[in-house]
Amino acid sequence: MTEVTDALLGAAAKAARPWAELPDETRAAALEAVADALDAAADELVPLAREESHLPEGRLRGELVRTTFQLRSFAGQVREGFEVIEDDADPDWPTGPRPALRRVLVPLGPVVVFAASNFPFAFSVAGGDTASALAAGCPVVVKAHPGHPKLSDATAEIVRTALTSAGAPEGTFALFHGEADGRDAVLDPRTKAVAFTGSLRGGRALYDLAVSRPEPIPFYGELGSVNPVFVTRAAAEARAEEIATGYVDSFTLGTGQFCTKPGLLLVPSDSRLPELAAEHARAKGATAMLNDRIAEGYTAGLEALRGHPSVRVLVEGTFGEDGPTPTLLATTAADLLAHPDALATECFGPTSLVVTYDDDEQLLAVARSLEGQLTGTVHGEESDEIARPLLTELAERVGRVLWNGWPTGVSVTPAMHHGGPYPATTSPLHTSVGITASARFLRPVAFQNVPPHLLPR
Amino acid sequence: MTEVTDALLGAAAKAARPWAELPDETRAAALEAVADALDAAADELVPLAREESHLPEGRLRGELVRTTFQLRSFAGQVREGFEVIEDDADPDWPTGPRPALRRVLVPLGPVVVFAASNFPFAFSVAGGDTASALAAGCPVVVKAHPGHPKLSDATAEIVRTALTSAGAPEGTFALFHGEADGRDAVLDPRTKAVAFTGSLRGGRALYDLAVSRPEPIPFYGELGSVNPVFVTRAAAEARAEEIATGYVDSFTLGTGQFCTKPGLLLVPSDSRLPELAAEHARAKGATAMLNDRIAEGYTAGLEALRGHPSVRVLVEGTFGEDGPTPTLLATTAADLLAHPDALATECFGPTSLVVTYDDDEQLLAVARSLEGQLTGTVHGEESDEIARPLLTELAERVGRVLWNGWPTGVSVTPAMHHGGPYPATTSPLHTSVGITASARFLRPVAFQNVPPHLLPR
Repeated sequence: MTEVTDALLGAAAKAARPWAELPDETRAAALEAVADALDAAADELVPLAREESHLPEGRLRGELVRTTFQLRSFAGQVREGFEVIEDDADPDWPTGPRPALRRVLVPLGPVVVFAASNFPFAFSVAGGDTASALAAGCPVVVKAHPGHPKLSDATAEIVRTALTSAGAPEGTFALFHGEADGRDAVLDPRTKAVAFTGSLRGGRALYDLAVSRPEPIPFYGELGSVNPVFVTRAAAEARAEEIATGYVDSFTLGTGQFCTKPGLLLVPSDSRLPELAAEHARAKGATAMLNDRIAEGYTAGLEALRGHPSVRVLVEGTFGEDGPTPTLLATTAADLLAHPDALATECFGPTSLVVTYDDDEQLLAVARSLEGQLTGTVHGEESDEIARPLLTELAERVGRVLWNGWPTGVSVTPAMHHGGPYPATTSPLHTSVGITASARFLRPVAFQNVPPHLLPR
Repeated sequence: MTEVTDALLGAAAKAARPWAELPDETRAAALEAVADALDAAADELVPLAREESHLPEGRLRGELVRTTFQLRSFAGQVREGFEVIEDDADPDWPTGPRPALRRVLVPLGPVVVFAASNFPFAFSVAGGDTASALAAGCPVVVKAHPGHPKLSDATAEIVRTALTSAGAPEGTFALFHGEADGRDAVLDPRTKAVAFTGSLRGGRALYDLAVSRPEPIPFYGELGSVNPVFVTRAAAEARAEEIATGYVDSFTLGTGQFCTKPGLLLVPSDSRLPELAAEHARAKGATAMLNDRIAEGYTAGLEALRGHPSVRVLVEGTFGEDGPTPTLLATTAADLLAHPDALATECFGPTSLVVTYDDDEQLLAVARSLEGQLTGTVHGEESDEIARPLLTELAERVGRVLWNGWPTGVSVTPAMHHGGPYPATTSPLHTSVGITASARFLRPVAFQNVPPHLLPR
């Protein structure tokens, strides 16, 4: 580990107790101070984000709003206080006299956050992982994503300054660059948890490090998902146009660089949907990708998909100076079931696979064949007999089940769950978006018969 | 894997959905039916437990009461229902129109439970892990502890019959024997979580298997703990007799075969406490150990401890036909700080290490040097200045902090936390005792805009 990163981790370890011991009101106000400072710096940050991520200005301004809303939401949670369970002493408790118990939640300690490239604000330096860990009372050390180094530095400086001005101890927040230091930070005994958003391959490698430590630590990785969408026969007949448009808009949103991008659309084999979707996709222009590495990954992934013998091309995308235009592919449910590893695979970019099915049994068979997913969607009619069995299959495999909607766009709200069984995440019990995300960084401690004035802060 | 175990896992996988879909009332009643059946079989089970564990009858009858109380407590939790978070649709939500979201908790699927030897009822076949997993809606496959095979078979038969009679699907519960099948079951793709109570070495080996799987799964291991007890100078002066008696009673309870046994007692170097404790320990008779393997482990561990150059023997235990009498050892805080791995180590059996300290700084230094623990205890006076700093250090390292009590005896109640940072457990966020234990086997699913009549059961 470089000396600089080593010093940051040392400072984070030193900050752990004073940051945890700050009154709730001070910690909440510190999170709000970060939100205010980021909002105030929008005109500095958004152009940097534009330059490094090639995302459109409107999207980036909206994402910054989401990011600061997130910080303020967690501030609200801190102010309300985390769960406390209390049992009074009870001499007649059935299993023997019960002591007085007070169970509270305490922070785990320093958290290392691996920033993502595709949301340079909301899943990066000051994103949901950072906000939820700080809210839990943990110092945060962020490993910057190499896709937006300048924005990362600028954001980090604002976060650090705002926290310090609001009374947070030195070391509560820091940023470093570099893959090697990232790996070393996961292995460092001062690190008590890791949050990661990125690829299955990269995330699994870091997970393997975290669980190999002499003291294994929680590793919250949000990895890959193909986010299948199932269109019932009745829905395909009733709303083909609307579904085709919604589908193409969703899988091309942000140049298809969303972890919730619908990568599979299941449609009846005699439906007009593929044709309508192709028409709509052809009308979409080129949009830029985040960076060269992502573009290379997309090109390679797309090559593999479209080169598969059972895949045919509905819309041939181009890849010019302005980035790629959408590519729409097609296969059959029988082929998907025969080659799930090759076909039900995430391809990060503006492409998706239309899968034609013959009957409801085949539709259910596809649902049953799925690995863990962040989302699963059904477009159906309320009287559809297949709807409930399909939703039931999905609920066993995904973190969020949608009805007549599109998975892109993840609302920051108490009931949101952005997670799912592996390989969607490494920890099916937890979410990286929404107010319950802070639970990842808290552990219970029960105080038995401890007089109130002696309880730690 | 043997064919028999393979078939049990297959049946568990098949039972997962029907067991999860049973109405709450049916699942609650099934847990109560198990409790009733076990209570009714006490006169059959307790003698078996006596024979195989050598624990006294009174203790075993009490433990069975605790076990069935636990099952009924979880039945109550099922009846109340697990957490549901609902967000109404909100077109004016700050980050864009919010869909209607309903976040519920769903079972993970089949859970493999590794039974412990030291609580043949409460941490074995029908113990807390089994009860909490069944309550969560997960089928359970128990790997029997070789220390009480006949009791395990008898208990399993009662559990299985009671569940089936109460309407649980075939395969909801099963038992198997054998270490090799245990390892294979951890690796089996049908297994979705593992709960384990036992040694650090055995638990870590199984944890390493669980996280090495193509699909890693949650592994909840409750491993080792030395449960340090800190006696302040003021408490040692005020209550030496009472503390000495309580200490010896606690570390010899159940022949010292509790994971919460106080393994370290920190006392001022000029205190009469070691002498008083020695006196009380000498008066204790021999009590049997659970089985030969545990006895051998104890003999070897004790040999290593008392052979350490900085350890002296206060009370020399014997090991006759009736089992061991207590052995009381002593060292200094300076030596403990110099050799933490050798001296702050769990030795399962009726021994404990009295550690003399010179001043409060040394007391705090010992607290700061500790690895993760299930419990940490302070005996102090309310006006003790050292009390709060000491409790604060402990809260950062242990799962349960006690004041003027003894860690043995873990109440089954909502605010209990029986867990702690590694190596106390492999999952610092979770408990294996108390009502929140079921959270280990539930994961969230958010339903977005799904009409109520289409929601899966």
